[in-house]
Amino acid sequence: MAKEIPYKIYLEENEMPKYWYNVRADMKKKPAPLLNPVTHAPMTHEELSKVFCEELVKQELDETTREYPIPQEILDFYKMYRPSPLVRAYCLEKKLNTPAKIYYKFEGNNTSGSHKLNSAIAQAYYAKKQGLKGVTTETGAGQWGTALSMACSYFELDCKVYMVKVSYEQKPFRREVMRTYGASVTPSPSDTTEVGRKILAEFPGTGGSLGCAISEAVEASSKLDGYRYVLGSVLNQVLLHQSVIGMECKIAMDKYGITPDIIIGCAGGGSNLGGLISPFMGEMLRGEKKYQFIAVEPASCPSLTRGKYAYDYCDTGKVCPLQKMYTLGNGFMPASNHAGGLRYHGMSSVLSELYDQGLMEARNVEQTSVFAAAEEFARVEGILPAPESSHAIKVAMDEAIKCRETGEEKTILFGLTGTGYFDLVAYQKFNDGVMVDYIPTEEDLAKGLRSLPVME
Amino acid sequence: MAKEIPYKIYLEENEMPKYWYNVRADMKKKPAPLLNPVTHAPMTHEELSKVFCEELVKQELDETTREYPIPQEILDFYKMYRPSPLVRAYCLEKKLNTPAKIYYKFEGNNTSGSHKLNSAIAQAYYAKKQGLKGVTTETGAGQWGTALSMACSYFELDCKVYMVKVSYEQKPFRREVMRTYGASVTPSPSDTTEVGRKILAEFPGTGGSLGCAISEAVEASSKLDGYRYVLGSVLNQVLLHQSVIGMECKIAMDKYGITPDIIIGCAGGGSNLGGLISPFMGEMLRGEKKYQFIAVEPASCPSLTRGKYAYDYCDTGKVCPLQKMYTLGNGFMPASNHAGGLRYHGMSSVLSELYDQGLMEARNVEQTSVFAAAEEFARVEGILPAPESSHAIKVAMDEAIKCRETGEEKTILFGLTGTGYFDLVAYQKFNDGVMVDYIPTEEDLAKGLRSLPVME
Repeated sequence: MAKEIPYKIYLEENEMPKYWYNVRADMKKKPAPLLNPVTHAPMTHEELSKVFCEELVKQELDETTREYPIPQEILDFYKMYRPSPLVRAYCLEKKLNTPAKIYYKFEGNNTSGSHKLNSAIAQAYYAKKQGLKGVTTETGAGQWGTALSMACSYFELDCKVYMVKVSYEQKPFRREVMRTYGASVTPSPSDTTEVGRKILAEFPGTGGSLGCAISEAVEASSKLDGYRYVLGSVLNQVLLHQSVIGMECKIAMDKYGITPDIIIGCAGGGSNLGGLISPFMGEMLRGEKKYQFIAVEPASCPSLTRGKYAYDYCDTGKVCPLQKMYTLGNGFMPASNHAGGLRYHGMSSVLSELYDQGLMEARNVEQTSVFAAAEEFARVEGILPAPESSHAIKVAMDEAIKCRETGEEKTILFGLTGTGYFDLVAYQKFNDGVMVDYIPTEEDLAKGLRSLPVME
Repeated sequence: MAKEIPYKIYLEENEMPKYWYNVRADMKKKPAPLLNPVTHAPMTHEELSKVFCEELVKQELDETTREYPIPQEILDFYKMYRPSPLVRAYCLEKKLNTPAKIYYKFEGNNTSGSHKLNSAIAQAYYAKKQGLKGVTTETGAGQWGTALSMACSYFELDCKVYMVKVSYEQKPFRREVMRTYGASVTPSPSDTTEVGRKILAEFPGTGGSLGCAISEAVEASSKLDGYRYVLGSVLNQVLLHQSVIGMECKIAMDKYGITPDIIIGCAGGGSNLGGLISPFMGEMLRGEKKYQFIAVEPASCPSLTRGKYAYDYCDTGKVCPLQKMYTLGNGFMPASNHAGGLRYHGMSSVLSELYDQGLMEARNVEQTSVFAAAEEFARVEGILPAPESSHAIKVAMDEAIKCRETGEEKTILFGLTGTGYFDLVAYQKFNDGVMVDYIPTEEDLAKGLRSLPVME
């Protein structure tokens, strides 16, 4: 008989996952390789090692190792904020009057406020182990930059963050968290890099963009002795580290005899969704079980649902490798009124390939409906969710309402990636009734796709 | 043999406390009674019932019932965010190179960001049970208001918050959390009350004060049918509800055979410290064990360390009952540059009496040293602490450093009451090196004490 299921499931220390799971090992058709942006030949270990740490390059390119033991130093850090709770959303079920059983894996109970810390600590660890002095990165709203600054502070690594200038000015609080953790935060574009100076000369007074910040961070690391660049999403290595989310979920659910029918996650670059679904997807790929997976993206930036599966640059500056992925084109700009994150033009190549093979569904949702779901969730479940996470909440609620209508007692699992404490300007817009939705026109999409590289 | 102690101790659901502990039941000399502000006669149940809910008045006046069973509805809500973890601060110990064992009880993992929710949900429950329509309260920085709005939303009670105007304008984020939970937030002073209109006429353009907001909230509840006023600290009932913190701590420590030598908490009105120490103090009052208790207050508002034990008004507007407490005088104004909370002129009468009997120590600390401790803690323990909580961190670190010097392996327990996500303006001041300390002069203190009521 299954044990009585508590309201919140916390794994015991001895039950915690000891390894990350690499879902590519179980994919028959693997994701397409990264290509050199100039030669279009597959990126080599050597080429990638100029940008990333050695061990991370290995992880990035490794399609066959199924299990990566998590180093003890990372397990020790995980103890600070993991296990994250797997919560049964009793109050939400009651509010929705649904026979569905809803669970969520809550990753927001740490100072970075999101799941990003899972990969930040891994990347900082490998940088330290390699004897590096520091790392560079970019950040938009600041979630990833905060996580990385915490991780670097723990390992006493220098951390240089290029923060999109408009966020730097409008979101000073995340900047202060990073500074409190000892990171240096530079508004991008800046005069500290060639690419930054070039953009400043061309567009004086620009508020910057994520693409420009990436280019500055990559350039900065390449010119500093003992530095590498790190990235918080999209990459295979990041999905590998984030598999700890799904591993904990699976161990907890197995312990109590729970099997999810539907697994839902929000998807920007894919780090959270990929991490959450990996071990479940592995079972499906091995033919052991069947699940329904749903990626949820904003209607304003619909890479899976309205993009093209093609090789594209990972950055707007076109200096990073080409990746085959669902993309809106590196030149696509999501509407500036979009309040949440999930603004990346492309999608993890692993998730893109799984989606292309029909193993995963995708939906896009409009932001006012996302904030309405967020508010309803907050009032009954007590957690103020991040706008990103609330995309998953919205679809989980939709599915639970369908169950009410059909009478099906489905078990729904979704990823609650973080908290919305630094997103209250967006909540205010919603509370004031002035938030608007934006759906790109066919013309907007066509314009974005024209930025795709021409491949022979 | 004691069980192996995990990094973080979470109680199992069946181990959770089932009752609140009323420390007054074990005090031989009880706290002095509340007095009517006009007649100076002890406040009767009937008089208090005009302001507070019936059940809460009973709790306020009850000096003999040792254990109050926690109603099931409140236990259900507690499940959302309790148990709070009891954390062994291994990383901080290592950083300080101390033989001391440091534990902290972390109350910040909920959307209100602090322990305030423990009493908010209880007060909202009793208001609902009494069939009331809503409650009114005041809030300064917004921690209590946020907690109360969450609790009222859960029980579908109306919640009217009077927020000190300067905070309303300068801290819009907490206001938005309250609005997201459906509370109405009015900047105080306002034209919605007589006292507010009077103050506005006398001081046009004033930024308001907590004292004024209390007076407005009390007046508003008295004029609305089916409303009562609620308060987040100082009161006996609040300490009773907050005893859940100490109860969980004690159960967890007993389970693993841990006995704290020193128990430390920050003290503003006393809600957290009183809750944390209650069950331990009970053992000491019953002669079963000995502990060292330390209350930590800001040097800028040192009610225990530099105040007078006397009857005083609980509010600046002098409409609330008189309470015997350590006080700086209701007319005392802490320096406006003081960044944290803990700005109340007085102290819980229970804690005041325990302190007067020599059962508890008190220390005051300056805010730059508090923020330095906060930053050091954040970097090694991964949690960005609230400035209030960081007062306790500072003294816990001081005590651990003493152990390093003496070689004593003391066990230190402190209360980490909340997170600092809404206090980043203060962190910025600290990071920028422009934070200053303020210690009231003897003259400042004498001026405050002149506002004490004249008692026959």
